[in-house]
Amino acid sequence: MKQSIFKQRVGILRKEMAGTKADTLWIIQPENRRYVSGFKAVDTQLNESSGSLIINPENALLVTDSRYTIEAIKDARDFEVVTLKKGLVEEIPAILARLKTKVLGFEGGYVSWDLQRKMAKKLRAFSPAIRMLPMDGLIEGMREVKDRAEIRMMERSAVMMGEILDQVIAKLQPGRTEKDIARQIEELAYASGADGLAFPSIVASGPNGALPHAVPSKRKIRASEPIVFDVGIRLQGYCCDMTRTVFLGRPTPKFKEIYHVVRKAQLAAIRAVRPGMKSSQLDGVAREIIQNAGFGEFFGHSLGHGVGLATHEGPRISPLQSVRLEEGMVFTIEPGIYIPGKGGVRLEEMVVVGKHRARLLTRAGHIYDFSQ
Amino acid sequence: MKQSIFKQRVGILRKEMAGTKADTLWIIQPENRRYVSGFKAVDTQLNESSGSLIINPENALLVTDSRYTIEAIKDARDFEVVTLKKGLVEEIPAILARLKTKVLGFEGGYVSWDLQRKMAKKLRAFSPAIRMLPMDGLIEGMREVKDRAEIRMMERSAVMMGEILDQVIAKLQPGRTEKDIARQIEELAYASGADGLAFPSIVASGPNGALPHAVPSKRKIRASEPIVFDVGIRLQGYCCDMTRTVFLGRPTPKFKEIYHVVRKAQLAAIRAVRPGMKSSQLDGVAREIIQNAGFGEFFGHSLGHGVGLATHEGPRISPLQSVRLEEGMVFTIEPGIYIPGKGGVRLEEMVVVGKHRARLLTRAGHIYDFSQ
Repeated sequence: MKQSIFKQRVGILRKEMAGTKADTLWIIQPENRRYVSGFKAVDTQLNESSGSLIINPENALLVTDSRYTIEAIKDARDFEVVTLKKGLVEEIPAILARLKTKVLGFEGGYVSWDLQRKMAKKLRAFSPAIRMLPMDGLIEGMREVKDRAEIRMMERSAVMMGEILDQVIAKLQPGRTEKDIARQIEELAYASGADGLAFPSIVASGPNGALPHAVPSKRKIRASEPIVFDVGIRLQGYCCDMTRTVFLGRPTPKFKEIYHVVRKAQLAAIRAVRPGMKSSQLDGVAREIIQNAGFGEFFGHSLGHGVGLATHEGPRISPLQSVRLEEGMVFTIEPGIYIPGKGGVRLEEMVVVGKHRARLLTRAGHIYDFSQ
Repeated sequence: MKQSIFKQRVGILRKEMAGTKADTLWIIQPENRRYVSGFKAVDTQLNESSGSLIINPENALLVTDSRYTIEAIKDARDFEVVTLKKGLVEEIPAILARLKTKVLGFEGGYVSWDLQRKMAKKLRAFSPAIRMLPMDGLIEGMREVKDRAEIRMMERSAVMMGEILDQVIAKLQPGRTEKDIARQIEELAYASGADGLAFPSIVASGPNGALPHAVPSKRKIRASEPIVFDVGIRLQGYCCDMTRTVFLGRPTPKFKEIYHVVRKAQLAAIRAVRPGMKSSQLDGVAREIIQNAGFGEFFGHSLGHGVGLATHEGPRISPLQSVRLEEGMVFTIEPGIYIPGKGGVRLEEMVVVGKHRARLLTRAGHIYDFSQ
């Protein structure tokens, strides 16, 4: 019988764990938890966990509380579901003692200082004491390289988002507010069957486009100014992330030039992707074009980031980091030029690294190329 | 000249800090940051902070990066905005050294183990070394008691939510899906001018209502079964949170009885609120009624929680905690009875503690009382 994808992932994780000092893993970060177990619950507030995984060579537990027991059993078929009555810190230590854990790997980049301290204190009290060891990146590393089913889902997510954006852009009219347009995107996302938005949509017109993380305002869009759409939906957990910049009517000569430079940098980077290349080198391909055009100081962020169960995950495509690109990695290529007080142009595609080069997952909106 | 509310809050914080061992505070938790500074940015992912406050007796800094500089200056007028180029861990230590910080208070319940460790390592390297001291609850404590402007905003938020829910309930028809109804709530929220939902709406019909945290599904609602709506919007940052359970047509005798018990427990608790009473005692008022009716084992959660800039904050109204209720506290009173496989009834009001008793902030939906 074929193993479920989750059983396979637990198997890989156990092998990876065998090379570390930890004999048991505690997984509480929501995307890691979902990736390994299939448990779909999200944590609505940082300090309110809906569950943790505890994995050692023999056992795979999903510990949760009565609010989530029924979903947990349905979602995480390869896990034994344990319903806590009092809380993580109160009950997990005894479970670990029963499993004869000696060293517990935990997510140091996610678990709060306070939670770690409380847990460590309880674990030290056992005899022999249970040690805690930060073990970040194990699952994040697995998540960076997508399998075929994941790529298929992300492509569906990207196609759906593209169709929505095409519809929205086709109906743009000067005088509509950014907020109103953002709302329309969200409505269409739900109507299309998405789980929801992957992140709050950015609809940033005119000077607002100079803020890479602008929040949609009551400003009315106008003809000839750049309007930045940075949008994404989530489909069965998987995110897509894409950005288009459009003009109603003719762009001003300055913004036409800027658009041209951004698009040129983006296309060069997409064409440059090769498995085995360094991500910092890829960032450099786009950055150099923007710098040579004299806009270097107006491109302040990295070229891109991985996308998957989280909108932002590995690999980072940045001048400061150099990850080796691998077949199956999915990331964005999103150069931008931002002129304070005037506006910005950002263009973002999501690509998957193939055997030889990049393949585009986001394909909509190519009719809106204002660089010609 | 009148001080801004943020200047006042910084003043209170400085006084509170004077009673601790810390001479400087580092505030990164988004709601705390907004409460103290007015900076509205949200953090889209846990590991991606849009800014931190650094407060000592003389200085009030908002350190952020270029993505947020413009918003920061606009929102946080009483703060000096510092734009980081490299990152928190790389640059905050030098800022603290310049401020002659000796002991840095930080949010141990929010800062990750890893971030604390990296920061502490850098801070130890100075001479004299800068120490880190967890200081949770200072701002959370201030946030528990709302001022008049906050109560007014929460009341507006609650009234808006109530009007939306009334509209939605008036149009309910057997055969519509939970998902579709949840979408309608979200659309109306945006149309009403809310910032957005405070949390993903719960629309849980029939057996789904037995899951206190159900996610809206494609299940079609039916006549005579309980349908739980747990919904909230955010208005200028302030959340509301309310729950109604309704029946299309006549409830079954069993659920009529359950509804009656839940409503009785809720009204008794609302009437019992007094400044100075213990929150655990208030929980007990409702819990005893449910227990005496024979449903004790089907009410597994606490009676309520504080609401404000976060949907869930202090004070907790729970059997396990005993906070003293104070005038100006805003919290929910939300007893529920959940019958696995059959359905649930939860009723939730948001109240503010007045000089003598509770005042309801959520007032809609009283026409839907099925206990008579």
